[in-house]
Amino acid sequence: MKLTLPPRVSPQGFDAALNAFASVVGKGWVLSSDADRDAYADIYAPGSTERWPASAAVAPASVEEIRAIVRLANEHKVPLWPVARGKNLGYGTSAPRMAGSVVLDLGRMNRILELDPKLAYAVVEPGVGFFDLHDEIARQKAPLWMSVPGNGWGSVLGNALEHGIGYTPYGLHARNLCGIEAVLPDGDLLRTGMGAMKDNPAWHLFPMNYGPTWDLAFSQSNLGVVTKAGVWLQPAPETSLELTWDIPEEGDIAWVVDTITPLKIAGLIDQNVFIPSWLGKIVLLGTRKDFWDKPSAMPEWRVQELLKEHKLGYWRVSIRLYGEESVNKAKAEVIKAAFKRHLDAPPFESWWRQGDEKHPMDITLGTPSAVPLQMSDWVGGRGAHMGFSPVVPATSEHVIGQLKRSRKIIAEHDVDFYASFTIGGRFANNVNMLMYDRDNAGQIDNIKKLFNALIDETAKAGYGEYRTHLGWMDRVMDTFDFNDHALRRFDEKIKDALDPNGIIAPGKQGVWPAAYRAQKKEGAE
Amino acid sequence: MKLTLPPRVSPQGFDAALNAFASVVGKGWVLSSDADRDAYADIYAPGSTERWPASAAVAPASVEEIRAIVRLANEHKVPLWPVARGKNLGYGTSAPRMAGSVVLDLGRMNRILELDPKLAYAVVEPGVGFFDLHDEIARQKAPLWMSVPGNGWGSVLGNALEHGIGYTPYGLHARNLCGIEAVLPDGDLLRTGMGAMKDNPAWHLFPMNYGPTWDLAFSQSNLGVVTKAGVWLQPAPETSLELTWDIPEEGDIAWVVDTITPLKIAGLIDQNVFIPSWLGKIVLLGTRKDFWDKPSAMPEWRVQELLKEHKLGYWRVSIRLYGEESVNKAKAEVIKAAFKRHLDAPPFESWWRQGDEKHPMDITLGTPSAVPLQMSDWVGGRGAHMGFSPVVPATSEHVIGQLKRSRKIIAEHDVDFYASFTIGGRFANNVNMLMYDRDNAGQIDNIKKLFNALIDETAKAGYGEYRTHLGWMDRVMDTFDFNDHALRRFDEKIKDALDPNGIIAPGKQGVWPAAYRAQKKEGAE
Repeated sequence: MKLTLPPRVSPQGFDAALNAFASVVGKGWVLSSDADRDAYADIYAPGSTERWPASAAVAPASVEEIRAIVRLANEHKVPLWPVARGKNLGYGTSAPRMAGSVVLDLGRMNRILELDPKLAYAVVEPGVGFFDLHDEIARQKAPLWMSVPGNGWGSVLGNALEHGIGYTPYGLHARNLCGIEAVLPDGDLLRTGMGAMKDNPAWHLFPMNYGPTWDLAFSQSNLGVVTKAGVWLQPAPETSLELTWDIPEEGDIAWVVDTITPLKIAGLIDQNVFIPSWLGKIVLLGTRKDFWDKPSAMPEWRVQELLKEHKLGYWRVSIRLYGEESVNKAKAEVIKAAFKRHLDAPPFESWWRQGDEKHPMDITLGTPSAVPLQMSDWVGGRGAHMGFSPVVPATSEHVIGQLKRSRKIIAEHDVDFYASFTIGGRFANNVNMLMYDRDNAGQIDNIKKLFNALIDETAKAGYGEYRTHLGWMDRVMDTFDFNDHALRRFDEKIKDALDPNGIIAPGKQGVWPAAYRAQKKEGAE
Repeated sequence: MKLTLPPRVSPQGFDAALNAFASVVGKGWVLSSDADRDAYADIYAPGSTERWPASAAVAPASVEEIRAIVRLANEHKVPLWPVARGKNLGYGTSAPRMAGSVVLDLGRMNRILELDPKLAYAVVEPGVGFFDLHDEIARQKAPLWMSVPGNGWGSVLGNALEHGIGYTPYGLHARNLCGIEAVLPDGDLLRTGMGAMKDNPAWHLFPMNYGPTWDLAFSQSNLGVVTKAGVWLQPAPETSLELTWDIPEEGDIAWVVDTITPLKIAGLIDQNVFIPSWLGKIVLLGTRKDFWDKPSAMPEWRVQELLKEHKLGYWRVSIRLYGEESVNKAKAEVIKAAFKRHLDAPPFESWWRQGDEKHPMDITLGTPSAVPLQMSDWVGGRGAHMGFSPVVPATSEHVIGQLKRSRKIIAEHDVDFYASFTIGGRFANNVNMLMYDRDNAGQIDNIKKLFNALIDETAKAGYGEYRTHLGWMDRVMDTFDFNDHALRRFDEKIKDALDPNGIIAPGKQGVWPAAYRAQKKEGAE
């Protein structure tokens, strides 16, 4: 990819900045060739990867190097786009929101600084991946389990900061962050929570500050570069029991949600319960052409045939319990009785006990996996996906409403329907997976229109997305319209106070510093 | 109390401000007589109530009135000190940190705006007390339980914002806040989380923003006036079982903590477990003179006599389980087996089942109570208390270390020892209750010295307080010393950006706006 300079930076100024960065990290860690820029492009981009071009990347190895780079970026007015491991697939991977930003690649900061088997937490740098932490836990034989997302290649910390979710009792990853360290836009260094006191051993244990609490002000944020954080882990349970039901009809999701939510809120179910529609199972069995050979969306009669043929329900629900065998048994009876009121078929039951092997693909056991990414192969070609991800109250009324709305819009755009609802407590994360062949211009164009329609119609109905792709960050921020966009006003006021030169991640999540507010339209779909 | 004007405000300027406030709320709701000022003094003040004098109070009835007052306060440069119900006993009640501040009394804003029996949450204004919400739940027969602190007179919202704790599964009150509305220092109005979108029904359900999350930036904070918030409530359980042990020796707290913490982290115990020392029971049986008639601290031999006489352990532990009877039974067996390893005596067991009356004094059942305040009568005279409240990791090593340290310092100051540890997860809140007769100058002087010593020595050992009284807010903020007080620098940078005139709660938690930074030394002990 050819060089796109940052706004208002001359070629000479840019070279001077890169040289300055090289004086900190060494020449080898400033990456600015065409091939380097390709490596930081959005490999799932809907359309050209040049839509969100990085100008270069710089890869520091320490907090002090990051502080030095941030200070130099201010001096040279060169914007930085921090990425942890750059695996934010479906949301932009490692590409920057603003053209010409320099990717601040934190992948070399990959130390696991603490792993406490008793108080069940780790302290990690941004470059630590789920597989890394998993391996280290195994190496130390620590009695700890992780919560992992669909893509195990990603960064533990990056995923939590982006509000990623998993399917265990620790599934709302951002809520497990406790005590962060961040380089501020002026190069200052902050530790939140009890870490604001030197060497306080409760840093990663007590989740609040003395005074205002800041941990999550640094999530989905451009207010600083998070350089380490505490992550709470699940103590390895004595046993685990999984109850699995195939749920026959689309409309059954109503009673499923109204059955699970009260048990989840009451704490009888600890886990984030994932409820994927049938395509979630089919994508693992083959690609689209094996099941339907026309370009138009798979029709309902064919779906019904496939469900019958593969003995699948429209939805599959697996509820996993963790803990003492006697407690899990008692809980299972309560859950089974609740399901029995609506469905005669008993669940498939599967016990795990200490000493048993874990199924390597089961992310509800905290094993990282990249298998769910297989869905990107569904459409054929250079496949990719984007997720449309609104949050709705976890009741049948809201879930059915959202299901009907997105299903209708997706059908109108003649795209295969693949949705999941994850019950995280009082709310459900709805993810609508939109899969496309990156080399099919018509498909790409259609997907973009579909994405716009989903955002707009869902907002009209009163719901918002919790996360989105680079190209739609402003459009989603626009939907947060209370009091004439008070949230954006507030975000940008704080942004300007902390980052007067606007050098950290301009445009992230639709928050623009004054210095680059004019760039807002570029790169927006 | 005579009038103390705010800094740099003339008597004429002050009158003009009060008249302007009266034009918003009506004359009757601007309170500025000597008697009015007394009513907003710290009734638990260690020493003179004039140490933290309010100049007046203004009591708005709506969000729009608050916005108007905040705008006028900017115009007239008159600082406001927001209080919810002003019952922050032990930490300053309704008195302001900075002399001459006008108390913004939110007590009239006392509506319960929503009470959702299914998704288990309420939306409350700051004036709603624990008793109010309890009554409304009962009136609606909603299947919901509350989490309440030791003083049920206080505000549900105020308590959560001040990081108050309770003794139920919802005991870390700030973590149950979800979706707040705040009037910003310039009069703008912000809604956090999904509430940043007009009428989004997930406002009080999903605990994160699109972009940076701000809810807890408004706790222990002077960045805005919180005007409403969602508060998650516990679904009424089918049954509840309480297991109570008297724990004989002081040193036994080591195994008690190491037994409870893993069960709490694993989720087998949901509740915040409160472990008070013996004086917690004795204060309910009489006052100090009934047990020990000398001014010096009660000696160890007398303590031992009393424990024997009243058949008390040095500590008492009650663990309460909530939920289905079968699940509670299974959990109880696990807990009893864990305790049995250290203590032969079986627990006292007490079941509650739906339909049973709740013990009106049992705050672990979510019933608000003011009985724990009785401890203030212990010393005689106009009794009061302050709490020294550090947070420590929930392991025997740290708990014993803190116990020994504070016990030694308190003994050196010849004061009765009354401590509790509340295990909230990976951490424990240690509260050391210091009781005093407000009219005994020698006692007050001693308590202040003791408080200073506790803060300084505890910080030297590496631990911080999670909350403190007005007079010590700066001293505690001083202990958060990482990177030359980076936290305060960050807090004050944001404060100055949002509140250039410094009119919201200057000095709160040691965060001073530029306009009043010179006032820092006044009112500090």
